[in-house]
Amino acid sequence: MNYKMIGKILALILAACAVFMLPALFISMADAQTQAVQGFLFAFLVTGAVALVLWLFSRGATKDFFAGEGMVCVGLGWILMSLFGSLPFLISGEIPRFIDALFEIVSGFTTTGASILTDVEALSRGMLYWRSFSHWIGGMGVLVFVLAVAPVSPKNEGFTMHLLRAESPGPSVGKLVPRMRKTVLVLYLTYIVLTIVNFLFLLVDLSPFEALMTAFGTAGTGGFGIRNSSMMAYTPYTQVVTTVFMLLFSINFTCYYLLLLGRIKDVLKDEELRLFFAVVVASIALVTLDLCTSAPTLFSSFGENLRHASFQVSSFVSTTGFVSANYDLWPAFSKAILFFLMCMGACAGSTGGGFKAVRVLILIKVLFRNINQALHPKRVKVIRINGKAANEKLLSGTTAYLVLYLAVFLVSFFLISLDGESMMSNISSVMACLNNTGPGFEAVGAVSNYAGFSVLSKGVLIFDMLAGRLELFPILMLFRPASWRRD
Amino acid sequence: MNYKMIGKILALILAACAVFMLPALFISMADAQTQAVQGFLFAFLVTGAVALVLWLFSRGATKDFFAGEGMVCVGLGWILMSLFGSLPFLISGEIPRFIDALFEIVSGFTTTGASILTDVEALSRGMLYWRSFSHWIGGMGVLVFVLAVAPVSPKNEGFTMHLLRAESPGPSVGKLVPRMRKTVLVLYLTYIVLTIVNFLFLLVDLSPFEALMTAFGTAGTGGFGIRNSSMMAYTPYTQVVTTVFMLLFSINFTCYYLLLLGRIKDVLKDEELRLFFAVVVASIALVTLDLCTSAPTLFSSFGENLRHASFQVSSFVSTTGFVSANYDLWPAFSKAILFFLMCMGACAGSTGGGFKAVRVLILIKVLFRNINQALHPKRVKVIRINGKAANEKLLSGTTAYLVLYLAVFLVSFFLISLDGESMMSNISSVMACLNNTGPGFEAVGAVSNYAGFSVLSKGVLIFDMLAGRLELFPILMLFRPASWRRD
Repeated sequence: MNYKMIGKILALILAACAVFMLPALFISMADAQTQAVQGFLFAFLVTGAVALVLWLFSRGATKDFFAGEGMVCVGLGWILMSLFGSLPFLISGEIPRFIDALFEIVSGFTTTGASILTDVEALSRGMLYWRSFSHWIGGMGVLVFVLAVAPVSPKNEGFTMHLLRAESPGPSVGKLVPRMRKTVLVLYLTYIVLTIVNFLFLLVDLSPFEALMTAFGTAGTGGFGIRNSSMMAYTPYTQVVTTVFMLLFSINFTCYYLLLLGRIKDVLKDEELRLFFAVVVASIALVTLDLCTSAPTLFSSFGENLRHASFQVSSFVSTTGFVSANYDLWPAFSKAILFFLMCMGACAGSTGGGFKAVRVLILIKVLFRNINQALHPKRVKVIRINGKAANEKLLSGTTAYLVLYLAVFLVSFFLISLDGESMMSNISSVMACLNNTGPGFEAVGAVSNYAGFSVLSKGVLIFDMLAGRLELFPILMLFRPASWRRD
Repeated sequence: MNYKMIGKILALILAACAVFMLPALFISMADAQTQAVQGFLFAFLVTGAVALVLWLFSRGATKDFFAGEGMVCVGLGWILMSLFGSLPFLISGEIPRFIDALFEIVSGFTTTGASILTDVEALSRGMLYWRSFSHWIGGMGVLVFVLAVAPVSPKNEGFTMHLLRAESPGPSVGKLVPRMRKTVLVLYLTYIVLTIVNFLFLLVDLSPFEALMTAFGTAGTGGFGIRNSSMMAYTPYTQVVTTVFMLLFSINFTCYYLLLLGRIKDVLKDEELRLFFAVVVASIALVTLDLCTSAPTLFSSFGENLRHASFQVSSFVSTTGFVSANYDLWPAFSKAILFFLMCMGACAGSTGGGFKAVRVLILIKVLFRNINQALHPKRVKVIRINGKAANEKLLSGTTAYLVLYLAVFLVSFFLISLDGESMMSNISSVMACLNNTGPGFEAVGAVSNYAGFSVLSKGVLIFDMLAGRLELFPILMLFRPASWRRD
């Protein structure tokens, strides 16, 4: 393990984290919220100081950097960032318990959007900003941000690659342009431009602050809002805009780059994108139909049924978790579909969470290959994704990911069950956190929150949110003794 | 496709099925239950006649027989057997609706034990016998029985192997003795001896008829009883005996053969067996502890807590589904464990259902190998099971099985949800049928049954029971157009 290099990167992450607190500090100062100002100032100074000390201690790092280092870096980085990021809530006293403050900021950074707050509207604007901004920066990744702005020498391509792999969602990370750092810059620019467009659309109906917070929550596919009723009270216009943008942020950002280059055909042929939109369209149709036939009294018109169905489908599949209506009262078939969408999640390389559409695609192909091989043992079939042969490592990695995902779910489900909630509450709270969605069903449903869980359960869910956002390996790696051995 | 050979085997299956109806016919005659006598007589004649016609039409079959033929045979065989097996219920009028009669007999043959009957005790003894016997014959497999008694020429080893593979639970089928047919005979003899021992133990407390029915239900890990309260009203002695035998029938029968040969060390070293018993012991300890601490008023003593915990753990992990207490009222943690046990299920090569302990073992090993390979891409690690290197086909087959299992679950869950029951009822009813357990949670819990489901849902669950018992492939193969092409 190259501890000094890890220290250096952690220092950069914390430095970025400190800088990100400044806008919230200024907002609190403008609002003359003394306690919030104290919270952000103290957090900024402590985080900055720790970053400085880490940086000084990490001088003279060698350049050896492997996949293991990348994962440890990302895992530790996210934990540190969350610990320091919870300070403003704690010190200001706006979220006085440590486990709650940690839960809230982890939920923010991981773009989960699960909240322990029963009254969001009681928070100061500075805190609301910090909460929503954590979605935005967590969606694309703090480390990715650092890599985009920090000076990385051209010789360190592998280094950037290992870090990017560990932090980015999806089974494989590709280069868009020959140099890794430029790839990262292109992705971040796309992200910023899309967020601004979303913000401008929202300005039609919302105040600038509210529009910005909603854009942050949408762009990161997070789901924190600044209203207790999530998006139920917003106008149909705002809900429709959000429906569309949640989907836009669920698409692999590479597609936007290809669109810019005019390679529209490549985008249209992308198998993950096709699967994703097929699922979305089918789900919207089925949920709308189910609402119209099984619960005709819930909404007053076909248009309303369609709007809420689209909104919730988009919200679940993007793993945002915004709520336009209390879907917990919807018929069982609609809820089954929403539950599945939450588990599948968005496309790889987007800000969305979940198992990822491309992994579902890979598993379907693996399955069909195995069925054929059971019947015709002598035929060898290569699996192709977007026309390219997929290597066996990607395939076995995907099935291993599924197994790990189920194992983490299972252990978490056991532990959460100690709290004594209903089985579906337990299943869906773990799934909502592991897939970074936020709200689930029953006790953690559309109009509920995570306040009632025990400290143990909150701890488990914090682990799940981090494991889900970083796709399990970086976080689990930290618990592996071999990761810490010097060799 | 070798249609004539398939026809021949189907004829043998139906002939066996007809013969199996005779004891039930005699019981009905002894009890002078006219309608039951009519039911069994008619069913016997029809089934026998169809078998004869099929046999005559299939003369001159060639000997080409491949894996695909084996699967089609087994899939079709089970469907036919179920259709004809439902006749006694229908004709006697004791279960007047077709879908219910089919559900009940499929539940019997597949050793699921899910019932649509609200009053089991109203059935005649002949019907009770037929219901319970279907567990016994389905547990080891009708085709396996046919293979054991039918004259198969020694040149047809591959033929026997393909059929056995398709009907036997578990990822791989091994030979115990050089000739396949002897292997089958050894397995069936073990099964018969164990059933008789179980029956003798039960005779202490129960009438001969009741003891035999309970032994059938236990041996097949089925779960049909002849009382409305399942095993709640039985004495602690009977419950403890059943607890032990449910576990004994969940073990790979190869282990008994090894024991007979004096190879005790090989049995003790068996990794699947170790995992299975580790899970069972841990589950009993945890559930007992949970009952003592979280629900101290449910039972009166530690001994009672231990007895009921052991019984339900054994019942769920063996996928029998007998009930000694209303576990639906138990604390959430205990229910979470029972739910997991239902999904994992028993050992391969036993009469138990579920995903199978050996597959869980394989997946755990695949997972650890992949984690290591992510960190050390150049090291190649072979997975060993019981000291032998597992081939890659077994590994990829197991992960494909997991994917298929999840896919079948998901589609079934969607369809069942149309009935509008609670989400947990829907999840657990599909899981209880797919894993051949029987009872689930909430609407299909310990004191409930499947009577309330729609025809569509019952159809889906019938499919799930068959798919679960035959381990998915043979049943799915029937829906694949390529299976029916002549080539």
